[in-house]
Amino acid sequence: MEKLLPDSAISLVEAGWVIPVTPAGAILKEHVVVISGGVIRDVLPARLARERYPEAPRIELPGQALIPGLINLHTHAAMVLMRGLADDRALMDWLQNHIWPVETRLVSSEFVRDGTLLACAEMLRGGVTCFNDMYFYPEAAARAALAAGMRAALGIIVIEMPSAYAADAQDYLSKGLTARDALKNEPLLSFCIAPHAPYTVSDKTFDRIAMLQGVLDLPLHIHLHETREEIETSLARHGARPLARLQSFGLVDANLIAVHAVHVTEQEAVLLAEKGCHVAHCPSSNLKLASGIAAPAQLLKGGVNVGLGSDGAASNNRLDLFTEMRLAALLAKGAEADPTVLPAHTVLEMATVRAARALGMEHRIGTLEPGKSADMTAVNLSAPELLPCYDPLSHLIYAAGREHVTHVWVNGELVVDDGQLTRLDTRQLAAKAAHWKDRIRS
Amino acid sequence: MEKLLPDSAISLVEAGWVIPVTPAGAILKEHVVVISGGVIRDVLPARLARERYPEAPRIELPGQALIPGLINLHTHAAMVLMRGLADDRALMDWLQNHIWPVETRLVSSEFVRDGTLLACAEMLRGGVTCFNDMYFYPEAAARAALAAGMRAALGIIVIEMPSAYAADAQDYLSKGLTARDALKNEPLLSFCIAPHAPYTVSDKTFDRIAMLQGVLDLPLHIHLHETREEIETSLARHGARPLARLQSFGLVDANLIAVHAVHVTEQEAVLLAEKGCHVAHCPSSNLKLASGIAAPAQLLKGGVNVGLGSDGAASNNRLDLFTEMRLAALLAKGAEADPTVLPAHTVLEMATVRAARALGMEHRIGTLEPGKSADMTAVNLSAPELLPCYDPLSHLIYAAGREHVTHVWVNGELVVDDGQLTRLDTRQLAAKAAHWKDRIRS
Repeated sequence: MEKLLPDSAISLVEAGWVIPVTPAGAILKEHVVVISGGVIRDVLPARLARERYPEAPRIELPGQALIPGLINLHTHAAMVLMRGLADDRALMDWLQNHIWPVETRLVSSEFVRDGTLLACAEMLRGGVTCFNDMYFYPEAAARAALAAGMRAALGIIVIEMPSAYAADAQDYLSKGLTARDALKNEPLLSFCIAPHAPYTVSDKTFDRIAMLQGVLDLPLHIHLHETREEIETSLARHGARPLARLQSFGLVDANLIAVHAVHVTEQEAVLLAEKGCHVAHCPSSNLKLASGIAAPAQLLKGGVNVGLGSDGAASNNRLDLFTEMRLAALLAKGAEADPTVLPAHTVLEMATVRAARALGMEHRIGTLEPGKSADMTAVNLSAPELLPCYDPLSHLIYAAGREHVTHVWVNGELVVDDGQLTRLDTRQLAAKAAHWKDRIRS
Repeated sequence: MEKLLPDSAISLVEAGWVIPVTPAGAILKEHVVVISGGVIRDVLPARLARERYPEAPRIELPGQALIPGLINLHTHAAMVLMRGLADDRALMDWLQNHIWPVETRLVSSEFVRDGTLLACAEMLRGGVTCFNDMYFYPEAAARAALAAGMRAALGIIVIEMPSAYAADAQDYLSKGLTARDALKNEPLLSFCIAPHAPYTVSDKTFDRIAMLQGVLDLPLHIHLHETREEIETSLARHGARPLARLQSFGLVDANLIAVHAVHVTEQEAVLLAEKGCHVAHCPSSNLKLASGIAAPAQLLKGGVNVGLGSDGAASNNRLDLFTEMRLAALLAKGAEADPTVLPAHTVLEMATVRAARALGMEHRIGTLEPGKSADMTAVNLSAPELLPCYDPLSHLIYAAGREHVTHVWVNGELVVDDGQLTRLDTRQLAAKAAHWKDRIRS
């Protein structure tokens, strides 16, 4: 890049290694990312950057790898308030006797705001700069994300079950669309249509959603083929597997983000690939709830785009993409009896550019390339437990954890500075967590 | 306990929660562990301890859970120097083209000392107080553990392959036994006989080991039924599966610590239970090398004692029992399609008292009970990413990580104080790691 901007208008982040994700596998030693107006302007060798911009403010991170901010492709952020409330239980016991009763009794705009703030604190400190959320009161979640300085895709949640938030499917849709209108000028926010799951959404509602999608053309965020029971129930009720049923409404296309996709036939994988669909792979949640073992490596091989999600903290119990990256890489190798599948770089793509693609935001985030928003995460690879370091990419996936994240930027703003949140007060968050814990337990 | 000791002879560790592991599932709120002479003298409510020992020095950890020090039941500590050297490769490519060439060229007493020191730093900071090691130059590893103030079970390694360390199986045995003699008065050390694996140890050597065991009666630390190939090779060469072959030498008894045990038939599981054998389950390594998915929950159900190991950092790439605990719990649920198997407390037992039992040290370590050595780990459960906390046991397994470890004691000595190693200089360790990295790369 020629020097088009004065030094005062830019800032430099210099790192021991810059891993831009694109081109695949590239590891740029001692490079600088040049930022202005929240946008990446250039990525160049540190020596050159110092010559070109001698007066520009610079953050030096010689022991760190700088990567694109991680993207959590599926979560229910506010559910952190129920983290570890009930573990080691069968899915229906867990839902019916523990999670749903709390939600029925307590979920409110305040619950979602406070829970999402706590979730944002956890995710930002763990290097996650964007999350794809599905929960009640999406406007409250959106305002929490904005307060945290975090990027979010909010689900316009639709479910037949009435709640304090909405009376019926139509009401969910209206409220979600109203929230979207209210927030349409926020550059950090985007929206998905989020019908909860095939077993909680009626044909009539899917029909309505299909009609709306003709106008909205939004990503469609939905739990799909998570458990065998879901598929059996669909066959019994509708005479079709959930994916086929979605297709009958015209909803299987490049907007579809199928969350979990644990139980997918070869034919279904071909369909997902042909239609340009996306999958949000959530390995911790799938194992913890004993939903089964998905086959992300097979899906990728077949041409399906796969990203990574933490799911909610009530079924994980961490909103931690480092854990999901490592687990995805390891589990695929073990399950497919092939240690070469899901190599480190592929998994990093799943947590960054592939998730961006699923959200329709690949032009804006997911890699460290000129023109994209400066959503970035610095990971310290110099801790004793990470020594020696032969390959920073390997370390990011197999050895490092979220605790090694030192700095995080969203849209050019430093939101985690040397491990500390710059916008959120962790003591206040702890007080809120204690407040909700008391109410949930009472 | 009556007050038998003056306040000056004891010290108190007061924690928000004390989780003694025995009795199973107990969570003692605001309790104190009373220590003197490296031994736990009492566990009692904090209020009572303050009355009884008003003058005793006290460490207060109100946000922490205090648990028994974690025990890594299988590792090759010095291999941290090859951490991440070669990932995403088939086992034989990995061994033959990357690991073995480095070992042949570089392994020495210095390599093992420096590598083991670095491994001890990592393990101690991660709450591990004892490790069961198998590597060349066990005396060098032992001296590193002593320098780190860490408890270790050293393998008297036996393998047919000559190395810089020893010329043949007999030489390995002699050198290991000599090391044991030299170190027999060290209270932190114990020894295992460690024939590397069925495919690297001859009948003649197993015969010799069996004879020696008549005198030594040591735990027998061996890789066993790790891969299908191992079993097929044994059938082809010896006409028996490896476990049956070991049994033919009389080596299947309460001393056996079968590492991995991924491929175990129902009959073999019954045999392991009947003979009182132990298994070291290493889930990360099994997945990463695509060895398969073990069935620890089935083994436990059948009465086999199962502990947890990290394996070496070249195939993991972390010496992190928190990661192994979480992965063991999750993987068992997913693989067995049952979310209730390996609940949190069982997994904590695997990383503590069950590993102690396998090493023949249950009378000395593995729980927080009066009379046992004060090997203890404090885990901060007050970090934002762990809020709220309904159940400290759940958090230890599913939400916390080694980064939440704040204090560690071995034999009553504080070896990690507020996250800092008290005996090891991390800068020196980093310099050693850099030195060996250069030599390995050259």
